[in-house]
Amino acid sequence: MILRLQIGTPAASVSELRAFIEGQGLRTFLSPEPTRPILAIVDRVPETLANQLAARPEVEQSIVPRGEWRLVDRAWREHPTSVSVGSVRVGAGESVVIAGPCSVEGRELILEGARICRDGGAHILRGGAFKPRTSPYAFQGLGREGLAQLKDAGQSVGLPVISEIMDATQVDAFRECEIDCLQVGARNMQNFTLLKAIAGAGRPVLLKRGLSATVAEWLAAAEYLAAHGSEQIILCERGIRTFETATRNTLDLTVLPLLRQWTHLPILVDPSHAAGIPELVAPLSRAAIAAGADGVAVEVHPRPDQALSDGAQALLPGELTQVVAECRVVGAALGRGFHRQPPLPAVQAGV
Amino acid sequence: MILRLQIGTPAASVSELRAFIEGQGLRTFLSPEPTRPILAIVDRVPETLANQLAARPEVEQSIVPRGEWRLVDRAWREHPTSVSVGSVRVGAGESVVIAGPCSVEGRELILEGARICRDGGAHILRGGAFKPRTSPYAFQGLGREGLAQLKDAGQSVGLPVISEIMDATQVDAFRECEIDCLQVGARNMQNFTLLKAIAGAGRPVLLKRGLSATVAEWLAAAEYLAAHGSEQIILCERGIRTFETATRNTLDLTVLPLLRQWTHLPILVDPSHAAGIPELVAPLSRAAIAAGADGVAVEVHPRPDQALSDGAQALLPGELTQVVAECRVVGAALGRGFHRQPPLPAVQAGV
Amino acid sequence: MILRLQIGTPAASVSELRAFIEGQGLRTFLSPEPTRPILAIVDRVPETLANQLAARPEVEQSIVPRGEWRLVDRAWREHPTSVSVGSVRVGAGESVVIAGPCSVEGRELILEGARICRDGGAHILRGGAFKPRTSPYAFQGLGREGLAQLKDAGQSVGLPVISEIMDATQVDAFRECEIDCLQVGARNMQNFTLLKAIAGAGRPVLLKRGLSATVAEWLAAAEYLAAHGSEQIILCERGIRTFETATRNTLDLTVLPLLRQWTHLPILVDPSHAAGIPELVAPLSRAAIAAGADGVAVEVHPRPDQALSDGAQALLPGELTQVVAECRVVGAALGRGFHRQPPLPAVQAGV
Amino acid sequence: MILRLQIGTPAASVSELRAFIEGQGLRTFLSPEPTRPILAIVDRVPETLANQLAARPEVEQSIVPRGEWRLVDRAWREHPTSVSVGSVRVGAGESVVIAGPCSVEGRELILEGARICRDGGAHILRGGAFKPRTSPYAFQGLGREGLAQLKDAGQSVGLPVISEIMDATQVDAFRECEIDCLQVGARNMQNFTLLKAIAGAGRPVLLKRGLSATVAEWLAAAEYLAAHGSEQIILCERGIRTFETATRNTLDLTVLPLLRQWTHLPILVDPSHAAGIPELVAPLSRAAIAAGADGVAVEVHPRPDQALSDGAQALLPGELTQVVAECRVVGAALGRGFHRQPPLPAVQAGV
Repeated sequence: MILRLQIGTPAASVSELRAFIEGQGLRTFLSPEPTRPILAIVDRVPETLANQLAARPEVEQSIVPRGEWRLVDRAWREHPTSVSVGSVRVGAGESVVIAGPCSVEGRELILEGARICRDGGAHILRGGAFKPRTSPYAFQGLGREGLAQLKDAGQSVGLPVISEIMDATQVDAFRECEIDCLQVGARNMQNFTLLKAIAGAGRPVLLKRGLSATVAEWLAAAEYLAAHGSEQIILCERGIRTFETATRNTLDLTVLPLLRQWTHLPILVDPSHAAGIPELVAPLSRAAIAAGADGVAVEVHPRPDQALSDGAQALLPGELTQVVAECRVVGAALGRGFHRQPPLPAVQAGV
Repeated sequence: MILRLQIGTPAASVSELRAFIEGQGLRTFLSPEPTRPILAIVDRVPETLANQLAARPEVEQSIVPRGEWRLVDRAWREHPTSVSVGSVRVGAGESVVIAGPCSVEGRELILEGARICRDGGAHILRGGAFKPRTSPYAFQGLGREGLAQLKDAGQSVGLPVISEIMDATQVDAFRECEIDCLQVGARNMQNFTLLKAIAGAGRPVLLKRGLSATVAEWLAAAEYLAAHGSEQIILCERGIRTFETATRNTLDLTVLPLLRQWTHLPILVDPSHAAGIPELVAPLSRAAIAAGADGVAVEVHPRPDQALSDGAQALLPGELTQVVAECRVVGAALGRGFHRQPPLPAVQAGV
Repeated sequence: MILRLQIGTPAASVSELRAFIEGQGLRTFLSPEPTRPILAIVDRVPETLANQLAARPEVEQSIVPRGEWRLVDRAWREHPTSVSVGSVRVGAGESVVIAGPCSVEGRELILEGARICRDGGAHILRGGAFKPRTSPYAFQGLGREGLAQLKDAGQSVGLPVISEIMDATQVDAFRECEIDCLQVGARNMQNFTLLKAIAGAGRPVLLKRGLSATVAEWLAAAEYLAAHGSEQIILCERGIRTFETATRNTLDLTVLPLLRQWTHLPILVDPSHAAGIPELVAPLSRAAIAAGADGVAVEVHPRPDQALSDGAQALLPGELTQVVAECRVVGAALGRGFHRQPPLPAVQAGV
Repeated sequence: MILRLQIGTPAASVSELRAFIEGQGLRTFLSPEPTRPILAIVDRVPETLANQLAARPEVEQSIVPRGEWRLVDRAWREHPTSVSVGSVRVGAGESVVIAGPCSVEGRELILEGARICRDGGAHILRGGAFKPRTSPYAFQGLGREGLAQLKDAGQSVGLPVISEIMDATQVDAFRECEIDCLQVGARNMQNFTLLKAIAGAGRPVLLKRGLSATVAEWLAAAEYLAAHGSEQIILCERGIRTFETATRNTLDLTVLPLLRQWTHLPILVDPSHAAGIPELVAPLSRAAIAAGADGVAVEVHPRPDQALSDGAQALLPGELTQVVAECRVVGAALGRGFHRQPPLPAVQAGV
């Protein structure tokens, strides 16, 4: 149950109400929302108490939750939230493009990839150092060294970086390498131990939807992060598993406008993994922006045919430019801006 | 196998080649394409013969088919095809909007609905007279009388009309009522008897994708129409069945750009049935246009809460206006025009 | 709503109650159950009326329906029902095996197939004459001639026959050829025109589950048959469409015990179409019997590699013998008998 | 590629062959199979080399792998393997029943549950101490204390115990509490960090199939365990996610006989999670045994309505007895024995 109190309710009244509720053995959270006190009760509220709470004068609106989440519910904040990844704000009304190779494959390659992404107009550099591969014999990533290379590459072109974390024991490496955003992959969406561990890492988290996760499960997974202290959560739709075999997955844009009603979190879309075919990435990126996404995450590789993982779906440099241009123009038609790229580092800016 | 011959190949050579192939016991079709002779072989071609055919000087390109279809394959025509529904051309580069209630529920209501659709900017009026309802006790439609009412309503506002046909025995009623386009519903996509029956009706057909049909099955169903004489086929994506229960179905926009590579047929998208929630229809319509659809088909009802079927997902008149406006603006951003509405009938045009 | 009245309620009281209900504008059905009067109300019953009806002294039990069906609900009959196909009773506690080729491919072949099925221990001969094929260029069946050949083959070995009907216009052919049971295929499960047409044909109907139909939709389709006059309905689970590609479909045995609670209709299982691999048919047949099926329907072909359709999944004659033996032994362990084969025709019985 | 060498090939020849292959830059494994040398090459083998290897006299059979697995492939061993959990052998031709509550909820309750399982005829006691719950606010399990209670309960009735491990950091607790078998849950099937961590723990692992994992992905996950040192792997089918909502999941028994052809690992079935309805558990258990499972894992609770998790699907004590009896009788009909229960601990055995 979420209780949206009257604007201006004195802090003392809020505390009193909260104490009263907790006195009934129910756990509560207080929203960080500055403009209005909002309380969430995470346990099941008996009907009589619910009616009693709803009738209190300081309660403007009481909301029966749609599922197992409270702190990521739309009603938890006055406005949709945004998340800063380095100097890039995701969810603040301007489209954002994350780009980069599937894996960090070596210093030269990731530097080259970073320049392509910078030149192509992207805002955040992606690259996997710990790779969840179906086969134990496939390339598993460069590990900590890959993180360091990614960070260096990002800094060389002035872009913040994002990489996938697979296990709680990797948190230190991500912190030491100053990875700007931690990605939780589709296979780990319900790895609750991992979610708890990174919730306290003080870094933004991009939470991909599980391969066959319902929206309700996805938001409950995001709630794990929020309940354990994270306020910087980005959702990322990446295609779900269906019977269709012509594409790698089925991008579920249907839930995008629904998510806007259900949660205040920013939402990105990854068309590369969904389609598995480079030619589909640009049209699906346009469609994602049109459906209301805050941006897209795409795979780019200097030479896709030599990539160590997922090369078949990676964009060529010129294709990235096209994706960026089309996201920009579709967004503009709908009144959505396009984020400025972060400034170039001093040495490259010509100093 | 599809053989695209050199432009300018003399008709006699084409006939000779065709006779040669049929002499091997293989069935062939000759494309109506005016600019270039194109032959399809529908039976399996032995490898030696395939190599032999590919090597002939008049064969510019020989194409191994992707599935069980030939006449609806992209390679069967030089350019994507368009289909005329009354005076409205679907697939000619300008977005088209089909709108109307789920069912024709009576003369007054469908006239009111027609005016709303006309005023809202739609091009074609939809309305079901034969309704495939899950329950035998639910409203099954007004039948032939419904078709007549729909046609009258369409004429009163100058819009061509489309309605669902459920059985071969209904073809005459559709012809007599001059229904401009026959819709084959999702449940009947693989009703092959029906497909054969309507292929020869000389009317455009809108073929909805089955609830869990693969793209390959969908195109094979379209091939049934083409192989039995229909050249006026429109595909319509309407959402597929997945595990997600937050929306009625999952709109599969992922296959839209793929279909552009695989077939020359025009493609519409029905976001109303996919989402099942009116608030999602506008964003999904925008996304469909951005992904490359030739237009959308949406449900509209003067008073959704009183509809006899599917009212919960119908748009209000004002919401239709918004859908039309947004399809227009997104299309414009991507260089796609918006079809002009057909002229008003003389009496309404003020004559 | 289903009203199970007290045993012994006088017919006059039943008529009076029914008239009262219909007087409220609600449609009713009276069960053919001889031991107890049972009434079904097919329209939505307002809550006050529902309470009023439930409280009447002659009403022993009032049941809120689980879905869109009444006449096929378990509560509609005192005991599960059985259906006679020729002299074979399906659903009377003894396992039944339907066997035969996918298609009737000619007089000699179907006669040979019939002998194999008879010798292998099957009770009913199957064979398709009208074939729903994905491709318009694939073998579409021998049509009416195929039905006649199938009937002759069945008679030559003393087995009743079953074949798929695809369209209402084919009903006469099925009647004239004396096909003992009409099969509605998965693609036509929601072809409501067809269901209405064959409901009055006076023949048993085997209704296959749609490729991605929920149990609720399947029972509603069966209700179409029942509401239009058929009392001889057999359900057949044949695998549903999932993301798994290692097998053709996923046999859904999970719903079998559920169906026993929800409906009084007999239930068969077709493991051949579900698996698509002959080696899986015997273990899945055993599993079906163990899960509570009334029998199985399997594909058998004298020479699977020469079959015109679905040969890859057909059993060899010896494999049919194994399926029959295993169904018999698993059934026996669970207290379920195995139906006796119908008597051989006089001439073959050695007369 | 898997190379099955001639029985009796001298160890020196095997070493020489292996060295030759590794000299080509390919990684190999040597099977622990005592009766025959079997080599697996895990990297992609160029066609020329493959032909060359297949033609060597000591190679009896060379097998192109069906997917990303080698060490769990059927061809890796002469016979299907079995795994000892305490004194209970899983996969040695005798059915095994795992039973217990979803969660360990306290010392008294798990002791009571253990007695019920013992009396009901089960062989292994299950109980969750670390619970992967969809909601962060739901009961998350008793943790290490729960493991200790589970072990004590198992010892008090002479049954080995199994519990779910969610994270690599928990391995020590499982070892110290002497948990006999580590369960990897469906949500963690592709938690590759976890798989690597427990592969070296020297304990049997029960690997549940992911909620929407293909068989190929499941076996690749098992290969992670095998490639990192585990030889004691049990697979457990627990239902997959489909569109059907009448049951919690769809139990995929279709793949059971397929798995027998593809892998040498023992296979259990969990009908409780698949169905989510207690009445379905007995028929599905029978079906699983009939389809060829090595046993079943079911949820049992003394008082299901008071369970802290998944109570709705738990069996009552008497229902467990029925499941055991039916698995026994169906197995017996098919020539499969039923494992003896482990001996009672001395004090309970009446000493």
